[in-house]
Amino acid sequence: MPLNKDLLYMKGHPHSSAFDFIVEPFSEDYTGRLTWHVLGNHLLRCASLHAGEHGFGYEYMLTDNRAWVLSRLVIELNEMPRTFEPYVIETWVSRIFRQFTDRHFAITDGKGRIYGYATSTWSLIDLNSRQPVDLTTLDNGGFVEKLIPDSEPPIKVPGRIRLKDAEEAGTRTARYCDLDINGHVNSIRYIDMMLDLFPKSVYDTAAPKRIEVAYCLESYCEDVLSFHKEETAPGTTLIEIRKDGSLPVVKAAITFG
Amino acid sequence: MPLNKDLLYMKGHPHSSAFDFIVEPFSEDYTGRLTWHVLGNHLLRCASLHAGEHGFGYEYMLTDNRAWVLSRLVIELNEMPRTFEPYVIETWVSRIFRQFTDRHFAITDGKGRIYGYATSTWSLIDLNSRQPVDLTTLDNGGFVEKLIPDSEPPIKVPGRIRLKDAEEAGTRTARYCDLDINGHVNSIRYIDMMLDLFPKSVYDTAAPKRIEVAYCLESYCEDVLSFHKEETAPGTTLIEIRKDGSLPVVKAAITFG
Repeated sequence: MPLNKDLLYMKGHPHSSAFDFIVEPFSEDYTGRLTWHVLGNHLLRCASLHAGEHGFGYEYMLTDNRAWVLSRLVIELNEMPRTFEPYVIETWVSRIFRQFTDRHFAITDGKGRIYGYATSTWSLIDLNSRQPVDLTTLDNGGFVEKLIPDSEPPIKVPGRIRLKDAEEAGTRTARYCDLDINGHVNSIRYIDMMLDLFPKSVYDTAAPKRIEVAYCLESYCEDVLSFHKEETAPGTTLIEIRKDGSLPVVKAAITFG
Repeated sequence: MPLNKDLLYMKGHPHSSAFDFIVEPFSEDYTGRLTWHVLGNHLLRCASLHAGEHGFGYEYMLTDNRAWVLSRLVIELNEMPRTFEPYVIETWVSRIFRQFTDRHFAITDGKGRIYGYATSTWSLIDLNSRQPVDLTTLDNGGFVEKLIPDSEPPIKVPGRIRLKDAEEAGTRTARYCDLDINGHVNSIRYIDMMLDLFPKSVYDTAAPKRIEVAYCLESYCEDVLSFHKEETAPGTTLIEIRKDGSLPVVKAAITFG
């Protein structure tokens, strides 16, 4: 299948999966756009569904006592869909490089309009050793035949996030509603916490266009999370979330536009 | 239609509506049960859909510059559905008493198993005067013909919530992710905030069985919310959320079991 790198989506490709959604009332922010919380969790859900459909899902991996762990997530949007607008999340995997694999997403209206893209990097952790598995050595070649090579979406790959002169931006204790089914703070909840660092006046005139997150360490209920941020360019803020005052949990970059 | 007060649900009643859901992964808490956040927002969504279907919905009321405002919400559950379990929310309206109307909910598996019930009280606000409308004087009898009289669910009606000897339980500033499409803090978000007052150790051995909320005042982004709580019986805690240090925004009672 030829790839149009300027308008990349995979509908119908046998190695991709597409899932239909609609922006339901009570899933929008105050501007009437889908929340990052709902979009983010739907991306993770689609990743899980796609992997399951193609034979390398959570349940299958658990039979070998292995679990997928999200390492990087970048979401870059032209716009967010609004109340009652349908949207389609398509997802596929482009490559394996030893301990990591790249999964991509296109968020469209299903008819060619592109809301945006996301890209993510995952590792497969052996739950006994807590070490990542070499993905090139999985039984039967693993899911190497399920890749769609050379299919990176047309967004910037994640960069290295290094804060130099960060200001303290408060603390927050992880609580019950922050937890996912594994008892960790939910990956997308960190995005909510970071969005909450910006006052409403920012959202009155702009919206996040690109959110880039590197997941460094799990955090748990009652962990005290501290927030550190640094504006490195107009509209672009680097953020680090630490626990115990120093251990980096999440490093991120958020760009408003 | 005869009403079984011990096993009340309305499936098929022409004045009720029923909506099907499933507990999707990423909508559960760390115990694998549907979150109160998702359930609560689905209750509000079903209320809106039912009112729309029966001719007194949000859009219709807005043509007269009127809007429904939630005044009371009580949710009482035997249990929460778990991952992949289907659930049905049925909702109907039982009565009008001047400025208020009572809306009820049954949460079932659609086959007779009752997860729980909810009951709520709403007023219709004139957006010009900010005063509640007398619901007995609506044009054409309003929705009086859409009621299902004598159909209160078998849960305790909301009581008066009065804290006498409350302890301070922290503050929290309302932020972007707390807001609904009207720019107010979302009604269900207050429930999240209150659930977050309890440590994980409470959830390890018990779950909220009844949550009763009286909505007193709207709050907005950047309002500083203070939390005050008082355990009045084993497992039952009264909570008041105030803004500006003194104005009651929400009064609530949460019972774990």
